[in-house]
Order: sequence, then C-alpha cells, then structure tokens
Amino acid sequence: MTSRPEFAARTAGMRPSKLRELVAAAARPSAGDVSGPTLLSLGGGLPPAEAFPARAVAEAAERALAGAAGAALQYSATEGDPDLLDLVGADLAGRLRLPDPTGRLLVTTGSQQALDLIGKVLLDPGDVAVVESPAYVGALRALAGYQPRIVEVPVDDDGMDTELLAGRLRAGLRPKLCYLVPNFSNPSGRTLTARRRTRLAQLAARYGFLIVEDDPYGQLRFAGADLPPVAADAAEQVVYLGSFSKLVAPGLRVGYLAAPRWLHRALTVAKQATDLNSAALSQRLLVELLADPDWFAGHLAGLRDLYRVRAEALTGAVADRLAGRLATPMPDGGMFVWASVQTPGIDALALARAAMRRAVSVVPGNEFSLADGYPRHLRLSFSMLGPAGLVAAVDRLGDAFDDLTASG
Amino acid sequence: MTSRPEFAARTAGMRPSKLRELVAAAARPSAGDVSGPTLLSLGGGLPPAEAFPARAVAEAAERALAGAAGAALQYSATEGDPDLLDLVGADLAGRLRLPDPTGRLLVTTGSQQALDLIGKVLLDPGDVAVVESPAYVGALRALAGYQPRIVEVPVDDDGMDTELLAGRLRAGLRPKLCYLVPNFSNPSGRTLTARRRTRLAQLAARYGFLIVEDDPYGQLRFAGADLPPVAADAAEQVVYLGSFSKLVAPGLRVGYLAAPRWLHRALTVAKQATDLNSAALSQRLLVELLADPDWFAGHLAGLRDLYRVRAEALTGAVADRLAGRLATPMPDGGMFVWASVQTPGIDALALARAAMRRAVSVVPGNEFSLADGYPRHLRLSFSMLGPAGLVAAVDRLGDAFDDLTASG
Repeated sequence: MTSRPEFAARTAGMRPSKLRELVAAAARPSAGDVSGPTLLSLGGGLPPAEAFPARAVAEAAERALAGAAGAALQYSATEGDPDLLDLVGADLAGRLRLPDPTGRLLVTTGSQQALDLIGKVLLDPGDVAVVESPAYVGALRALAGYQPRIVEVPVDDDGMDTELLAGRLRAGLRPKLCYLVPNFSNPSGRTLTARRRTRLAQLAARYGFLIVEDDPYGQLRFAGADLPPVAADAAEQVVYLGSFSKLVAPGLRVGYLAAPRWLHRALTVAKQATDLNSAALSQRLLVELLADPDWFAGHLAGLRDLYRVRAEALTGAVADRLAGRLATPMPDGGMFVWASVQTPGIDALALARAAMRRAVSVVPGNEFSLADGYPRHLRLSFSMLGPAGLVAAVDRLGDAFDDLTASG
Repeated sequence: MTSRPEFAARTAGMRPSKLRELVAAAARPSAGDVSGPTLLSLGGGLPPAEAFPARAVAEAAERALAGAAGAALQYSATEGDPDLLDLVGADLAGRLRLPDPTGRLLVTTGSQQALDLIGKVLLDPGDVAVVESPAYVGALRALAGYQPRIVEVPVDDDGMDTELLAGRLRAGLRPKLCYLVPNFSNPSGRTLTARRRTRLAQLAARYGFLIVEDDPYGQLRFAGADLPPVAADAAEQVVYLGSFSKLVAPGLRVGYLAAPRWLHRALTVAKQATDLNSAALSQRLLVELLADPDWFAGHLAGLRDLYRVRAEALTGAVADRLAGRLATPMPDGGMFVWASVQTPGIDALALARAAMRRAVSVVPGNEFSLADGYPRHLRLSFSMLGPAGLVAAVDRLGDAFDDLTASG
C-alpha cells in the first residue's frame, strides 16, 4: 500500500498514552478490598461509579423513551437538541456571565471532540499552539493530529504563568491558540487567578490568538469562591468548553462549546462532517435531568462533598505517611493532586513502576508534557477510591518509596 | 484574528448541504395529514419514528441502568464495549464471511465518524479519493475536510462502473481510497453486482488503494438475494462500515468499522484523539437488544416489510401519475429511489423548487456530485411517509410538473 508510510507519520504525533490501560485497570474491582493485592487506582481520571446518578438517569430514560420517543431516537440538529441548548445557554448566561450564549453553542461528543474540531478548523501543520504545562494528555493528543508546534507554558501556584507567555509573545511568538484548564486543572490541580484570567484575555486580544478554555471541573469546586471564566469578558477571544462527563456521567458522551461568533459556523460545519450530531438519546436524558434544577443542584452538592472528602483523605494520608517524601498541595476542586517527589534521587517514573509492583497505580508527570519536563512529579487522582482506599493506596505508595530507598 | 482566512479556506470544501434543513423539515408533523399544506417529505434520508423500537430500547435502558450501571455510564475502551464487539464480530463472521473480525473492529459515532477518521489517517491535501457518483453527501463532506482531489466514477444499473475505474487506473490515476455504498446506495438505490465486487477488490490489490465499503442499508434488502460484501475476500484491502442508525435508531449514534490489520491501530489512535470513545450507554443498549437474536431478526424483518411496502407505493404512484415524466427504478432495498426527469426542458432543481411550493420536498441530483453532473435527477426517499402519504406526495409532484409546464 502506498499509503502506509503517510498514515504512520500522521499518527506518530498522537501519542497513545496510558488512558486505555488505565481504563482497563480501573475496570477491575478495587475500592471494596483494601488489604489484598487488588490494584488500587490513583491513576485514572474517571468519576467513580458511586458518583453516577444511575437511578435518576434510568427514570429520565423512561420519560425520554415514553410515547413516540422521536426526539430521543432520531438524528438531531448538528448544533444539538434545542431544549438542551436552551438549558445550557441559560446556565452559562447566569453562572458564567457569558453574553447571549445560546446561539454560540455546539453540543459535542464530550469535550474531547471540541478539541478535535478546534484543531481541524484552525490548525495547519507548523502553526503554534500554546498549552499550559503540565497539560491534559487528551488535549495534547487531539491537537497533535493537526501537527502544530506545541509550546508549553509552565503552571505555578496561580495557574499558567501569563507573564512568561507575555514575554514569549513580545519576543515574537505568534500562536493560533492557547489551551488551558483554568479550574483545578488536569493534572496540576491549580486554578488560574482572576488577575491572570484578565491578563490572558488581554494578550489574546492584542496578539490575535484564540483561548481554548476547557472547564470540565468548574462546578466541582469544594473550597474557595468561584471565579469568572476567561470567556466572561472576552467572548470573541475564547471558546469555552463544558462537559457533563464529570457532572453526570462520561458514558453519555455529551459536552458543549460556546464559540466566538466568527468561529461558531465553521465549528458547526466541521462537526456535521465529523459525526453529524452527538447522541440524541444522551441529550434528551440530560434535558430530562436538567429540567429539575433542584435535583441537579443537590446532585452537584453531593459530588462536591464526595470529592472534598476524598481530596482531604488523600492529602491527609500523604501528610501522615509520606511527609518529607511527597508534597501534595490541596486543590480547590476537581479530581487531581499534582504531587512532587521530595526525596533526592528518586525519579517519578521509577516510583510509578515500584508503586505498580505494590498494586497501586499513579501517573508519572512526564505523561503530561511533550518536553518530558516533570521527572519528579506524579498525578494522583482521588476520584476512584473512598477514604479508606485512599489511605491504603498511600500506604502502598510508602512501601514503594521504601522499596526504592532499600534497593538504592 | 490572523486565523480567520485559514479556517474559512479549510471549511470551504465542506459543503454544508441540505441535511440540516431537511432534518428541520422532517421534524414537522407530516405523515398524518395528506390533504393540507403540511410539508410532505421525500427529501430526508431519515428512518421514520414508527421504525424505532422505542419500547424495546426503553426496556433495554432499564436493564442497562439497573444496579451499579457502571459500564453504561463510565468511559468505555476506545475500541468499543467488549460485549458489543463480540456480538458485531460474530455477526460479521457469519453474515459477511469476514475472517476473524473482532480484533479489527472499532465502534464509531455513527458511520459518519468512520469516514472522518479514514480521511484523517489517510488523506493529505491533493491525494486522490475516488467516489461512486452520485455519492452520499456526508461522505463528500467528510472527505472534503482533508482537501483531497475527489474523482467521481459514475454508477449505472449495476452500481459503480468498475471498468471505467479500471481505465482511469490504467491511464495513471493513483487513488488513496475508493468510497462506495454497495447495497441500495444513497442516493442511487443501485446495488453493485457480485462480478463488480470481485473486480473492485482486484483493482484495489493491483493499484494499492483502500476500498471504503459503506453498508448502512445491507440488512434492509427487500428483494433479491444477499451478495457477499467486497470485504469478504479482500479484508486487507477494505474497510467495512456498518451502522445501527438505520437498523435500530440514529439517536444512539453507534456505527462500527472493520479495518484491515495494517490500518486498525492508526484508526483506533485517531478515534481516541477525536472523542475518546462513543457513548457507552448507547453501546450497552445495543448489547441488551442484540443479546436477543430472535427479537432482532423479527425487528429487521419488520423494517424490510415497512420499506418494501413504501418503495412499492412510491414507484407505483409515480407509474400511475407521472408515467413518461419521471422514471423511478425500483431498488432492492434501502430507502431511496434515484428518479430521472423525462420531460424535455424540465430541470431537476426547478422541479424541486416547484415541488417545495406545492409542499413536497425532494433533493435535486446535483447535491450528490461536486461536478454538478445530475441536473435531471432527483433523490426520492420513501422512508418518511406511509403509503397514503407517498401517493399524496407524488400527486403534489405531479402538480409541480404541471406548474412548470404551464409556466414554460
């Protein structure tokens, strides 16, 4: 086949990362057994099954599929189910102060598809794409398919370092887009400060690039006050990505984007060419669920409690068991702690391997950087295990440290 | 924004066709009222609501969401739900004689996504993509995003003219791929003969191109005997696309592909980068439905009866009312009749517009060709209306003819 070398080159940039293996590992039973050799996962970024409102979804399915069920089973408009667009638009107008969002919305097959569509519409090979660093691996993978030059801008305690970006821009860097997760980022757990949000929007306006504001965790804040999104005062500079994967269930595969007016039609045309529309049934289930705002608010409050308790359990267990060996800054929400190894001479990848031998999974930091900039970091997810499981997992991580120290 | 000209150029090739408008038109009530001014649709290629097994889907949802419901609500493996892969693999091994298909499968967000992934992995700007002509507009749109040179090879009564393709290949044409719908094609209604299937596979092997065999309607045959797919004896030359959109419901957005071994991993990596996985809930519903083969066989038999009755009603009404003015060859399955205008001086686009004024929608033939090669053809879909509605729609089409003749 003449075509084999070409497609091999094309997909070489898409690093097939650990997600599939992590999904497989996460599918094994773990949380119920904290003493045996069953794998305990601090690795995957999956919501736990106990976070899924299975009964509410089942009742929504019953309602959505009663009678003719046409809307739930038929093709939908490419933009999305009109009722869902209204509900999401009203939410964004209120919660995020986005001006008149409904006409700028597009329902996507998870936020991952939004990243793919943005790359498809905007990126030519060699274009510059700025990403916060460390970055969500799925974003690196989605963008890589379009062969941009990816420039990583480091995150500190205040989120992506916008002054460092400003310096690069003054020195001539001309990105097409800048990707970041402003709230409790995956993997850094950091939140971009209000001051930096304003600054980033100013830079985008001055230098003419698009901000891709990926916000899957914004409603999972369990400490501190909500911050306005970057898009709030810069709707024409920002494409805002939301998702129901972490708020209801990933199995629905429903996310959405709110795009600048100049970009919305191109993204919609690209979406139509890509998969016509996202699953109508999933969209109708969400319409049924969101139509009861009290239920949804209560459900979100429950999720925030669940993740707060788990974040405290994980960071508390590390403080008790691994003080001086692992630093785990407490995030204000989300699912992730960006841990740094403090013990001299211990490499994060070696630690991750030693941990796997002790039947606990973690993700080494270099997974989240094309530049391999994080040899001393681990991403720890506190989403999959209950408090007792998290304590047991940290104990095993301590054993892994001991194994490395003893053998070193 | 520096990026606007680029994305405008990028999406110019993706012709946003009439599908969205047709979906909107189809959403209006029509079948119940055959005398008033309500639009009667011969336009869209949508299954009718009465073809949806809404009650069976509702019962499947109840089972899939009972208990922990983890598999239905969680992320799934990129390749697809393992149980669904087993069921589809067994079906393809039996029905299509595809050797050992399960490891070559990838569940996609409808067949449309398979087309997008194939383009993404294989096509560079300027590459040649052969398509049967007339062709499914969604395929033209999906491929166009990757900026190939699209070469149309005409369809005759026996499907795509493989000898014409052979001549082009001998003359030096070197396509990366060749796209066609072998069974009851959209829009031509034609079926590729067994002899041409073998010939096409030979050409693909000799000249080193990939056949994209898109088969959404193969199980909707209501006349004649099943033919083996092109892929049956050429699994390494063909990517076979199947879909549950026409067999169960489009709202699930579940299709699948069976790829050559050399291509499967690249498509899977591209799928992971594009939307991680297709909706797990939809996949679990299909597992529940397909686990009862008797139910599924009965459901398909019902669909075949439904479409046969409608195809006969449409072609019969045209023979009664429009003999000498419109020729409508009866297809052996599927949803479409490729009608040709016989009256001299009447253009299909003018007829489609006149029909819309008489409140009946049809799609002019040039929608299905980048070369505008079908100014005398219309695609008539018999899927959306019952027999009485089809007769009424043909009456109105007759009125549209009269309007044009009177004014001409």
